[in-house]
Formats: sequence, C-alpha cells, structure tokens
Amino acid sequence: MPKLRVHNFAMSLDGYAAGPHQDINHPLGVGGERLHEWVFSTAAGRRMVGGDGGLSGIDNDFLERADHGIGATIMGRNMFGPIRGPWTNEKWKGWWGENPPYHHPVFVLTRYPRAPFSMEGGTTFNFVTEGIEAALDQAMDAAAGADVRLGGGAATVQAYLRAGLVDHLHVAMVPILLGSGERLFDHLDGGPAGMALVEFAASDGVAHAVFERTA
Amino acid sequence: MPKLRVHNFAMSLDGYAAGPHQDINHPLGVGGERLHEWVFSTAAGRRMVGGDGGLSGIDNDFLERADHGIGATIMGRNMFGPIRGPWTNEKWKGWWGENPPYHHPVFVLTRYPRAPFSMEGGTTFNFVTEGIEAALDQAMDAAAGADVRLGGGAATVQAYLRAGLVDHLHVAMVPILLGSGERLFDHLDGGPAGMALVEFAASDGVAHAVFERTA
Repeated sequence: MPKLRVHNFAMSLDGYAAGPHQDINHPLGVGGERLHEWVFSTAAGRRMVGGDGGLSGIDNDFLERADHGIGATIMGRNMFGPIRGPWTNEKWKGWWGENPPYHHPVFVLTRYPRAPFSMEGGTTFNFVTEGIEAALDQAMDAAAGADVRLGGGAATVQAYLRAGLVDHLHVAMVPILLGSGERLFDHLDGGPAGMALVEFAASDGVAHAVFERTA
Repeated sequence: MPKLRVHNFAMSLDGYAAGPHQDINHPLGVGGERLHEWVFSTAAGRRMVGGDGGLSGIDNDFLERADHGIGATIMGRNMFGPIRGPWTNEKWKGWWGENPPYHHPVFVLTRYPRAPFSMEGGTTFNFVTEGIEAALDQAMDAAAGADVRLGGGAATVQAYLRAGLVDHLHVAMVPILLGSGERLFDHLDGGPAGMALVEFAASDGVAHAVFERTA
C-alpha cells in the first residue's frame, strides 16, 4: 500500500514548527529560519537550491530519503504562499521560482478554488477545496502507486495526524527555543494515537525521530 | 556567583514533562514513567535506587553532573507529594522513603505552612509559602556558596524561567509521544529569553540540550 509520509519536519525544542508573525517577509515566522539552517549545510540541501558541496552524514541521509519513492505532494495553503482569503489574481506561483523542487503533482489545500497550472521541471500545482481526504485521494491517484509526501505547515500535518492518515512521521528536532509560534503537536485531542517510534538518531545539531503508524 | 540549575528535566518529543491524570498511583501522570526509563538503565540511576550495575555513556554522564556542586534543592509541591490543599496531617514525607536521595536541604514551594523536618542521610524538607524568590533566597543561604538545583515539576521550572532566574537548563528529550499532560515550555510569555544553547548530545534514546543564561 502506498504511504503518506512526512519528512524532515523541523521543530524547535519548545515545540514550534514556525516562529510568530508569519508574513511574506517571514514565511517561517520571526526566527523560524533557524529551524532550517541545518538543511543548507548538507549536500542535499545545497543541491536543492542549485548549489554544490555541503556535508554528508546523518542530516544529509535523512534529507535524501525524503524524495525516495514519492509521486505527489500535499501541502497547506500557507506553505504555498502568504496570500489569505480568495485568490485575487493568479500571479502567485509559490515560493520556489520557475522550477520548483517537486517535479511531480502538488496538491494545495485551500477553501478557494483556483485552476491548476504547470511549472518547469514537471511540477504541477493543483488546488483542492474538498478537504484533506479528497486531497489524499487525488494525490494517491496522481502518484500512481508511489507514496505521497505531506509537507507543511503544522496545521496541515496536525489535520492528517488527527484523522489517523499519516503512515510515516519524521520530526527533525532542532535544539533552539523559539518562544512562540505554531506548534506541531497541538490540537491533537490526546495525541497522535497508534504511532510507534522506529528510529532515533542525532547529528551534532539535530535529533531525528521517526514514527510509523501501527494501527 | 552560585547558580540555579535544572538537570535531566525529561520531556517527550511532543513537549510533555508529565502525562495526564497525575495522582498518587501515577505521580508522573499516565504514561509519564516512560520519560524516565532511560535513567534506570544507567549506573547513576541504579545507584540512586540502591542498585548496582547499569550503563556508562552519555546519559550516565549527564545524570552524574546533576549532583556536582549542589548544596540545596527547590521543588514544587506536586513533586513532593500528591496531596493538594492544606496539610491535613504530617504523615506524608515525600516519595523517596526514609533516606531520600538529596542529602541536603530541600525547599518545597507551597501555599500552606508546614514545619520543617529531617530525614535520614542529611535531607531536610522545608516548606516555603512566600513564593519562588523567597525559596531561592533560602536555598541559596542553605547552600552556602554551592549551587541550587531546581527540581520539578513543569510549573515550578516555568515559574523560575518566567522570572529569568534559571542559570542552567538541561532538558532530556525522550522521543515518545505522550499526547497530553503538562508541558515544560508553556505559559512563558514569549519564551525563556536570554537562554543560549551551550551543549547538544544524544544517546541511543535521549537528546540532551543544555542552555545557559546569557543576560
């Protein structure tokens, strides 16, 4: 059975997946970029932004796994862009430029319809207004037997955890204190039931914990 | 200057320092004992409960540090016992039996006065009704130049963090999901300002993060 997988979901020690005051200048909230510094020191992280060099090791290994066997991605609207409310025009095409690092169909959860469009490199953006289960169905169809990756933000991962639909959850805990912002593990009505730890490993700067769904 | 130090403060990946439904049968809340299993696999943990054997390594090193240079301990009332409200009698003498593992003066925060008493092995329990700063003053006096250890629970550590009085904070993050309970990093009004990471190391089962006060 194809799986729904969360990879490299960065969280501060105090539990925040983004800092406070998210806006177009602070897509990860104030201070939130500190959650992702480890990514850009690795070879996989450098490649993702078109560079070379970078470190191998545990962090790099976890980053590389995230693309293996993935045929589609689901994300929340806030991960796609800073715009709230109805789409007033169709100029915004994501944070990632003309050639986004997906190279497969991406399904964006939103309450406001928008026509799908294609980018360079094989990424298409599709907008799903019928909720998380419909998005999962559409992404699974598009992935055609491969797994589906669930991006962020925190609220989106929470919604799928609450529904018991996440098969693989990899959290990258970064030992910083953001103080406030958006928590990953919140509003879960008693927590993500049925998730068992299958792997725990740490680099010099990140603790990686991987859970899989057992029930 | 003597310091106020928190050591081996165990927290689940989802941020809880105790599970839900704390009572006399579940002093750490339901599931909360899983936060402390790593302690009892180490040599220091075995010694603490009168056993021998156990592992050396990172976890053991962190446990051993916790006693170095400590002359007094502060704890919240819930860490001392399950009784709430006024002391109806003086039979309850802590969770630790006749010879508690402190061997120095312990200051228990409570709103209800109670006379101090002594236990075997040099531990005295003292009850402070005048608040966290008074408890710190009394503990610092009792420690006579040594540092003061701040035990739990979460609400007590939070109160000292909010007041900017914690000099050294060691969190032992255990990769389990408790789902609900009492959070360490909560009610902090923007977070523990002025704490900088000075050490990060992980064993096979615990990620240790140490912060020190910079301001």
